[in-house]
Amino acid sequence: MDFNKRIENVLKRMDEKDFDGMVVTQFNNIKYLSNYYPTSFAICILKEDPIILCSAMDKEIGEKTSSIEIKEFKSLSKLKELFKKEKLSKIAIEANLPVKSYKKLLPDKVSGESWDLEIETFLEKERIIKSPEEISMIKKATDISHKSFKELNIREKQENKVKDWEIAYELGYLMRANGGEEESFETIVATGTNSSLPHAKVENKSLESLVLMDWGCRYQGYCSDTSRTIIDEKDKKQEEVFDIVLEAHNQAIKSLKSGIKACEVDKVARSIIEEYGYGDNFIHSTGHSLGLDVHETPSISKKDETILEKNMVVTIEPGIYLEKEFGVRIEDMVIVGKKNSKIIGNLSYYL
Amino acid sequence: MDFNKRIENVLKRMDEKDFDGMVVTQFNNIKYLSNYYPTSFAICILKEDPIILCSAMDKEIGEKTSSIEIKEFKSLSKLKELFKKEKLSKIAIEANLPVKSYKKLLPDKVSGESWDLEIETFLEKERIIKSPEEISMIKKATDISHKSFKELNIREKQENKVKDWEIAYELGYLMRANGGEEESFETIVATGTNSSLPHAKVENKSLESLVLMDWGCRYQGYCSDTSRTIIDEKDKKQEEVFDIVLEAHNQAIKSLKSGIKACEVDKVARSIIEEYGYGDNFIHSTGHSLGLDVHETPSISKKDETILEKNMVVTIEPGIYLEKEFGVRIEDMVIVGKKNSKIIGNLSYYL
Repeated sequence: MDFNKRIENVLKRMDEKDFDGMVVTQFNNIKYLSNYYPTSFAICILKEDPIILCSAMDKEIGEKTSSIEIKEFKSLSKLKELFKKEKLSKIAIEANLPVKSYKKLLPDKVSGESWDLEIETFLEKERIIKSPEEISMIKKATDISHKSFKELNIREKQENKVKDWEIAYELGYLMRANGGEEESFETIVATGTNSSLPHAKVENKSLESLVLMDWGCRYQGYCSDTSRTIIDEKDKKQEEVFDIVLEAHNQAIKSLKSGIKACEVDKVARSIIEEYGYGDNFIHSTGHSLGLDVHETPSISKKDETILEKNMVVTIEPGIYLEKEFGVRIEDMVIVGKKNSKIIGNLSYYL
Repeated sequence: MDFNKRIENVLKRMDEKDFDGMVVTQFNNIKYLSNYYPTSFAICILKEDPIILCSAMDKEIGEKTSSIEIKEFKSLSKLKELFKKEKLSKIAIEANLPVKSYKKLLPDKVSGESWDLEIETFLEKERIIKSPEEISMIKKATDISHKSFKELNIREKQENKVKDWEIAYELGYLMRANGGEEESFETIVATGTNSSLPHAKVENKSLESLVLMDWGCRYQGYCSDTSRTIIDEKDKKQEEVFDIVLEAHNQAIKSLKSGIKACEVDKVARSIIEEYGYGDNFIHSTGHSLGLDVHETPSISKKDETILEKNMVVTIEPGIYLEKEFGVRIEDMVIVGKKNSKIIGNLSYYL
């Protein structure tokens, strides 16, 4: 990864809006700029000559991994001294900087401090379009997670009535054994009525008819994210719902290409589900971007008007959730292309 | 758990400072007040008649588990309408509310909105002292995590040169099998030179001389947190460092009782390590409180002047980290008592 180029690109964005500094605290934003992933509080002051201030605990790992100079963090008031010394006048902050830190960083006009703090999503914007290297990391994470899922042999596990949480552990183990770093989020193994919760937790329940799984791993920090639903083929209602979700999934992916708005893709999936009368049961967005974080912007949702561009990577994951019955979700990651888009991996939908 | 009592207590704290509303978004704060643990964005407006606004995805789980009325969250501007309708005038916010949400919630004076938003840690303060029920949950989590650690048989694993990440997975599996809900944080299995990083990640490395482990699980949402270091008894330096850390650990626990300041307990541990000349190698605080979150306030650190009280639960975890050599940390959870304090569990230090 070319970290200097990344820093240069963000500095250019800052310069265009007359910012001379940015306070970066999100762990994956720091990793994106420097390769160092904090394990405790850390702060990067992005400017012509950037610096990272980290916990004493992280000095060893920071010095080993960071392309940006590392020093020990002392306090936010020391940071203000730095702002003053470097005569920073317009400083960008992240949208999710805690309000307490924000208030501590406000200039004390009485003691001659003067700078503006403004929320700007420079980093998020820079991270939207994935480089070929980043795409290959996401592909590798997907390969590992799909290979591991196949090795799990979920149909056999279902016959043997294995417990939901054991599946989650075994899949985690397999992903690690196959070269992944860790799960990119807590694996969902929802069986029976539990599957009507999109973010179901494992329940110490033996696998029964219908299993909804949502899982992923990391490779070099980059995430994968896939869902499959294993239905009972003899159950007409499960089959009906499965077919609708798969149609919504396929049509949304077909519509995906550079130039289309995120909300338009959401509408493609949502309209199909609505036509079949399940509109009220599709209780989340159609998808989200992913990269170093499993949820990045833009989201593929009703309200997101972002125009999609080549080499964004997004999930498409429509679902139908019937309380007290079951839920179905089918999810793939897709690389946005100029004319059409490409699903990452080729894991079957019929399992 | 008596959720109504908890709400009453926080409302009383608010009333004492003339607050008539509080915006609560931290997942564990919401769980503390209502028993509902969000899986996506949710917001609780704490007032005489509290309400939780959650994602459509969470409505089913929210309605099932929450003792507070649940409605679907629409937007932060709808929230402001609620503030206006209920004539709230002084509203508390959490210290880590994202600055973007904070700015959206500021009153628009032009359109006649007027309220103050002030950071107040009412919830954190209420959560500091643990009820007998909460303490029994922490004890149960500890029981499970210690039993699982013993079943792991770490010395045998070390002889068989098992990989660090396999240990982490097996321990996670055992904690779940023994009735825990999940790991309370990512298990640390640091072997050889990797142990000089307090927050070491697993490295796909076979266990070698010296293994530092830091692990815990949840029970009913409550966390445990323990560290042990398995040294090579024939290695004089490891033994020397181990003995110093254990002395610091034991003396700090001896000093712990209601009335003492957190920083004074830190000083007990730190002074011992300094006396032996390892002061610069103790690169973190002596401990932290824990409960629903694995890190709560107060911390047992140089700067924290909180006076400890009966039934706080804190970790005591001094450590010495020698770069390129090894690290030793020994950690227990301790219930603060009037005259002396009680370690939770009785897991041996000599493994």
